[in-house]
Amino acid sequence: MENDRSLLQHAIRLAEEGINRGHGPFGALIAKEGRIIAEANNKVVLSHDPTAHAEVLAIREASLLLKTHDLSDCVLYTSCEPCPMCLGAIYWSGIKKVVYAADRHDAERSGFSDKLIYDEIGIDPGKRKIHFIRIPDAGGEQVFKKWDGFENKIPY
Amino acid sequence: MENDRSLLQHAIRLAEEGINRGHGPFGALIAKEGRIIAEANNKVVLSHDPTAHAEVLAIREASLLLKTHDLSDCVLYTSCEPCPMCLGAIYWSGIKKVVYAADRHDAERSGFSDKLIYDEIGIDPGKRKIHFIRIPDAGGEQVFKKWDGFENKIPY
Repeated sequence: MENDRSLLQHAIRLAEEGINRGHGPFGALIAKEGRIIAEANNKVVLSHDPTAHAEVLAIREASLLLKTHDLSDCVLYTSCEPCPMCLGAIYWSGIKKVVYAADRHDAERSGFSDKLIYDEIGIDPGKRKIHFIRIPDAGGEQVFKKWDGFENKIPY
Repeated sequence: MENDRSLLQHAIRLAEEGINRGHGPFGALIAKEGRIIAEANNKVVLSHDPTAHAEVLAIREASLLLKTHDLSDCVLYTSCEPCPMCLGAIYWSGIKKVVYAADRHDAERSGFSDKLIYDEIGIDPGKRKIHFIRIPDAGGEQVFKKWDGFENKIPY
């Protein structure tokens, strides 16, 4: 627990230093066996990438380093509760433990709409603020049939 | 609408071709004013990147091309309903319209746990299958105070 606090405070320092360099106010790191293997700041604006949240960048860096998309033996430390995009990335990476400091309400007060996305995700696609159109007979199911029957696939 | 169907079928072909090359069974593209500006397959396994879903890769490519994280004048076409990670990426990118074919239940039947993540996102962090630990007094709120008072920040 003391190590958790220390690593979380490192992620918070990354966020603070990032602000000075023009980045968003978020920092994250990935640790394996208690040692930092990847760290990142939010770089959305300067890198022209809406997916460049600190958590996503740290996950991508750790995965590249370990040469696997499976980070189930890693822990994520992040200055703020992950947004739904980052939460999805965490689930897909297999990370089993996340330690965070500020929460979605703190982010909301500083102008970050994590809460809006949390609210929108739970509702029917057709009722969201973004216009979602499903064309069910366009052939989407065929793709999965091909995948199911494909002998050389690598399941993940 | 006819153009929507045609562009969606292009995304489906990307997914089918991707399977042959060892990728996951998902394809997506971004169009601006009816013209394709970015296209991608799911590359999670071969690129060692759990975030390399087709939608995320297409959004990253389009943003880089347009030199902005704001894709509010673009449309996303994707062979399958976006997972929560991709849905978050869509909201952060400002995309206003998403056209898709298969849905989360089709994905579930082929072994992709989009539905699990949708279920987990809506519940209290402390009750999720992943271990979420909040340390509220670690200093996370200070980051936002610094951001709020930082004169040279670029809001996004």
